Amino acid sequence: METRLASPTRDVVIGPEQPFVVIGERINPTGRSALQEELRAGDLSRVEADARAQVEAGAAVLDVNAGIPGVDEPVLLTRMVRLIASATDVPLSIDSSTPAALEAALAAYDGKALVNSTTGESSHLERVLPLVAKHGAAVIGMAHDERGISMDPQVRLEAARTIVERAADHGVPRKDVLIDPLAMTVAADPAAGAVFLEAAGRIRDELGVNLTCGASNVSFGLPGRHTVTATFLALAMPAGLTCAIANPIDPEVRRAILAADLVLGRDGYAVRWIANHRAERAAANAGG
Amino acid sequence: METRLASPTRDVVIGPEQPFVVIGERINPTGRSALQEELRAGDLSRVEADARAQVEAGAAVLDVNAGIPGVDEPVLLTRMVRLIASATDVPLSIDSSTPAALEAALAAYDGKALVNSTTGESSHLERVLPLVAKHGAAVIGMAHDERGISMDPQVRLEAARTIVERAADHGVPRKDVLIDPLAMTVAADPAAGAVFLEAAGRIRDELGVNLTCGASNVSFGLPGRHTVTATFLALAMPAGLTCAIANPIDPEVRRAILAADLVLGRDGYAVRWIANHRAERAAANAGG
Repeated sequence: METRLASPTRDVVIGPEQPFVVIGERINPTGRSALQEELRAGDLSRVEADARAQVEAGAAVLDVNAGIPGVDEPVLLTRMVRLIASATDVPLSIDSSTPAALEAALAAYDGKALVNSTTGESSHLERVLPLVAKHGAAVIGMAHDERGISMDPQVRLEAARTIVERAADHGVPRKDVLIDPLAMTVAADPAAGAVFLEAAGRIRDELGVNLTCGASNVSFGLPGRHTVTATFLALAMPAGLTCAIANPIDPEVRRAILAADLVLGRDGYAVRWIANHRAERAAANAGG
Repeated sequence: METRLASPTRDVVIGPEQPFVVIGERINPTGRSALQEELRAGDLSRVEADARAQVEAGAAVLDVNAGIPGVDEPVLLTRMVRLIASATDVPLSIDSSTPAALEAALAAYDGKALVNSTTGESSHLERVLPLVAKHGAAVIGMAHDERGISMDPQVRLEAARTIVERAADHGVPRKDVLIDPLAMTVAADPAAGAVFLEAAGRIRDELGVNLTCGASNVSFGLPGRHTVTATFLALAMPAGLTCAIANPIDPEVRRAILAADLVLGRDGYAVRWIANHRAERAAANAGG
């Protein structure tokens, strides 16, 4: 199954036969205090720079989050969306837990956006799905429901099924639902990775949808965490992960994704692999 | 299913619930002209150094190959096996295409060795399996037969099934047969990786055996090849690859394997991951 997102000038296709899609994670003030202070002061220069840098590093979609306590999120998120849409040509993932902010940003965006995200909880679905349907967007569904986050892959599959079914009830087709099987922190629970992979495989096999995740969660708290995130992505791709919210500027993450695409036959004759290798060498030479 | 190899003092268990086993590939004169010249001259000092270095870097088994044109291979291989068995405590993989060399080395080895390898061709099986049975060894079966190397995963499965069945006829139990689904060069054929993964999954599911491969083949001819090899290993582990002939001294390969074990829940609370991180940091500090 293929999910199509679009900016005003460019389509991006997410699917099992396509190169892996990186949704750039950097435009998010959570845990970035400098960005948070700048955004509070109305300074969006770093947003524009981060947008350009992530696209240059291979992000095919950009996630945009304006969640800062006490800030007028609908206003700020809309400003950020407009700025990024003018500075880059990639589709956007609009990332908010506030329906009013989602609504404002979707109304301001002239493309087919990704809405990040809803869970499988009824009240959440009822707030988010009408917005997704109204704006013809796609949506990320987090594979948990009223029961909370389960370590049983079957429960995650059931939550995913609920999301897909409720989306259909609202007129959002299955191809426009990306399921996140929930990438949890392996340092906190050694079973987190295996449960993710098992849930991912079942959801892909049963529902046929595209899968995504927030890849960086997996390595939280570990030394050498970029390698763990990169390796996790490679492990998850054969289980059906076709895109992820990740940092393309990290060379290990970028290389693992390109190498996995190459091994999986999605980069015929290593064209993109070799182009990245050359670009990294040119950048290293320019830097040194 | 678990495969048990043994040196005189140490058992190594290969299996889906176990940490991934690296079979150190370095003690092989193919493509190493300096080593080849030294071995011709009877100088085995590099063999001993390579053995120790690979074990220190995490190899749980060492492959030993003495294939040099014009050399008395049974004599040289036996000397190398004796030396490595005295210098390290890990089980050995005895790597030869010459039955006389396999026989001599197996007779000289006081442990449960791995024989590398047989194909599924009848004549090959009839030469190798009696030696494996006589010495109570395990054996690597390459998943091709008289038809040659097929790009059809089903044909590779059939070759693997033949090997397992013929091994049983000779009294070699299934747990002592490791199947190599054939890791080919992706630069030569973009489908090579996907065919490997599909064949691996089918062989694991249908036959239940442990899988191995020569991991470095995959990246032959590519820039940044260590990353491709490392990523390939991560991709292959969920498909049933439980060990591989690889270079543990390469940091990317070592880290990808440790990170994959961590994500797959085979390194509870990241004990081995953190130990490797510390060892690398200590080595870097000592070096700098």
